Amino acid sequence: MKLATLRNARPDGQLVVVSADLARYVSAGRIAANLQAAMDEWERAAPALAELAAQLDAGAIAGQPFDPALAHAPLPRAYQWIDGSGYLSHLERVRSLKGSKDEELQSVRPLIYQGGSDSLSAPTDPIIVPADDLALDFEAEAAVIIGPVPMGATREQAEAAIRLVTVLNDVSLRRLVVDDLQNGFGFFHAKPSTAFAPLAITPQSLGLHWRDNRLHLPVRVEVNDTLYGQPNAGIGMHFDFADLIVEAARTRALAAGTIIGGGTISNPHDETLPIKRDGIGFACIAEARTAEKAKYGRARTPFLKPGDRVRIGAIDAEGRSLFGDMEQIVQLLDR
Amino acid sequence: MKLATLRNARPDGQLVVVSADLARYVSAGRIAANLQAAMDEWERAAPALAELAAQLDAGAIAGQPFDPALAHAPLPRAYQWIDGSGYLSHLERVRSLKGSKDEELQSVRPLIYQGGSDSLSAPTDPIIVPADDLALDFEAEAAVIIGPVPMGATREQAEAAIRLVTVLNDVSLRRLVVDDLQNGFGFFHAKPSTAFAPLAITPQSLGLHWRDNRLHLPVRVEVNDTLYGQPNAGIGMHFDFADLIVEAARTRALAAGTIIGGGTISNPHDETLPIKRDGIGFACIAEARTAEKAKYGRARTPFLKPGDRVRIGAIDAEGRSLFGDMEQIVQLLDR
Repeated sequence: MKLATLRNARPDGQLVVVSADLARYVSAGRIAANLQAAMDEWERAAPALAELAAQLDAGAIAGQPFDPALAHAPLPRAYQWIDGSGYLSHLERVRSLKGSKDEELQSVRPLIYQGGSDSLSAPTDPIIVPADDLALDFEAEAAVIIGPVPMGATREQAEAAIRLVTVLNDVSLRRLVVDDLQNGFGFFHAKPSTAFAPLAITPQSLGLHWRDNRLHLPVRVEVNDTLYGQPNAGIGMHFDFADLIVEAARTRALAAGTIIGGGTISNPHDETLPIKRDGIGFACIAEARTAEKAKYGRARTPFLKPGDRVRIGAIDAEGRSLFGDMEQIVQLLDR
Repeated sequence: MKLATLRNARPDGQLVVVSADLARYVSAGRIAANLQAAMDEWERAAPALAELAAQLDAGAIAGQPFDPALAHAPLPRAYQWIDGSGYLSHLERVRSLKGSKDEELQSVRPLIYQGGSDSLSAPTDPIIVPADDLALDFEAEAAVIIGPVPMGATREQAEAAIRLVTVLNDVSLRRLVVDDLQNGFGFFHAKPSTAFAPLAITPQSLGLHWRDNRLHLPVRVEVNDTLYGQPNAGIGMHFDFADLIVEAARTRALAAGTIIGGGTISNPHDETLPIKRDGIGFACIAEARTAEKAKYGRARTPFLKPGDRVRIGAIDAEGRSLFGDMEQIVQLLDR
C-alpha cells in the first residue's frame, strides 16, 4: 500500500491511502488520525490500511484526485531521524573535503548521525536558508520508517521492523559541516530540515524494486530542469538498511516511527557534469565538485543559490516517479 | 504550575497537574491528552492548566495522592532533544579526556548536539546498558521545554519561548564517546536514553529560583546513597538557556515541545571525592575522575556498574526536591 499525509490544521496532518497509480486517495482517518498513530498501532492499523488500499485500487471506493502539492512529509514531525552512510563511493568522494574525519574509510561499521526531526519539510516546501553563502547542497537518499526495535537487535529483527520506504532530500549547508564536525559534537547547524517525497510505500508494494533490504530504483535529481544524476539506490549500498538499523540499535532501543536514511546515493563511476542522458551523475553537488577538482583542478558546479529549483524522485523503468517528486525552491530567510 | 505525565497504556502517558507541595494531582485530560498536545496548543491550554492548578492548590479539587514512582518523563517521547554545554568548568575538566575535540575552550559560542528523543526514560526507569565495560556515567542537568522558535531567533524570542523547566540525567557511555567523536558524525552510541525528573514547572512557579534564564538551585547527586555533588545550576552557567536556544535556531526553526538541556552542571572548585556535607562536588563521574587524576595522578572513582543506584534532584533551601527525584538502578541488558 501507498500512504501519504495531507496538510490540514494539525501539526501531524491527515493520513490518506493513495491508489497504486497515484491518481486518487481516500482518507484513512477512521483507521488512524495520522501516520505516527498508525505506527503506534501497526498490527491493528496495517491490515485495515491494506484493505482500504485494495478497495481504492479495485474502484470500490471512488476516492478523490490526489494532488502531491497538498502533501506533507509522510511524518511531518517524527520522534527520531537517523541518517546513515551506506554508500562507500559517497564517502570516498567527500572524504577529501576539508573537515571530514573519516580518513580511514568506514567499511566495517556504517557512520550514522542523529538528525533533527521536529519539523520535516513537505515535498514542495521551499528550502529556507539564513544566508546565501553557506554552500547549500541537496543529498538524495532512500529511507525506511520502522517499527519498534529492541536494544542490541539482530539483523533479522532489524529487517522485520522495516514497514515503509520513501525517498528524501537531506539538505546540507556544506560551509557549516567543518564547524559542526570540528566542534566534535557532530552535525547540527549544517543540517536544516530534511525534505520528503509525498509517498511512503510498504516493501511488499514495491515488488522487485525492494530486495536485499535495499531500494532498487534510480533516483533522479534535476536542478533548474538540468539532470544532475540518476544513480541507482540499489547499487553500491555497502551497508543495507538492516545493517543501519542494527548499528543504530547497538546501545538503545528505537521507537516506532523512527526514520532511517541510507545516506547519499552514490554509484562508482568517473563522470563529471554535465552528464549524458544515460549517465549516472551525482545525488549531491559536493560529489560533483570533487570529481571536477580531480579532472579539471577546480570545482565548476556551484552550490545552490536562492531561486534555484531542485527536483528529486525515484523513477521506475516506465519513467514513473514512484514516491512522487520533491520539488523545492531555495529561498533566503525573510528576517 | 507543576505538570507531570503519568504512565498509562498510551506512549505519551496522561498529563496531570500536581499541587504546589507535590502531594496531590488531578488529571488534565479535559484540557490536553498529553503534554505534547498541550505544547501544540499552549495559548489555549496554559491558562486552563493554570486555573486547574489554582483550584487544586486551593482545595477546591481534592485530587489524588501523587506518587512520583508512577510518573513518566514529562515528555515520554519528544520531537527534539538538544543538549547544550553551558558550564565552562565542565568543558575545562573533561577537555583533557581522550577524544575531546574542544581544545580551544568554546567560550564564544556554546557547543550543542542533537540527542535521541524517541524514548526518554521515566524518573525510576532502570539505566539499561548493553555491556558492563562501557564506562557508564550520569550527567545531571537543568533543561527547558520550549514553544516554537523561528529560524534566526533573537535572545528576546528565545527567552519568551521558555515554557517549562525540569532536570534530567544525560546518561553517557564514556568509552563510546571517543568513537562517536572521532567518527566525526557526533554523539550517538555514547548517548542512550536520557532520564527526566517527574515534574516540569513553569518559570513563574519557580519564583526566585528562575532568573536570568537560569535555574538557581543546587542539584544533588547521590550514588548508592553517597553524596557525589550538589553544584548550583545557576552558578558558572556561562551560556544561559536563551543563548542555547539562539544557537540551536541559527539555521533552523525549533518546534513546540523541543527540549533544550543546559549541559552538565559544574561549579568551579578544587575538590575531590568524597566531598564534605557542605561541599560542591560533581554532577558527573568524568569530572570527579579528572580532578582525581590532577590531585593523585590517577582516577579513583569508578564508573557505574550494574546494581548501582543514582539519585538526582534539584533541592531548595528547605531540602525539598522541587522537581521530584530521579532514582535509577543500573541493569545489564537481558539478551
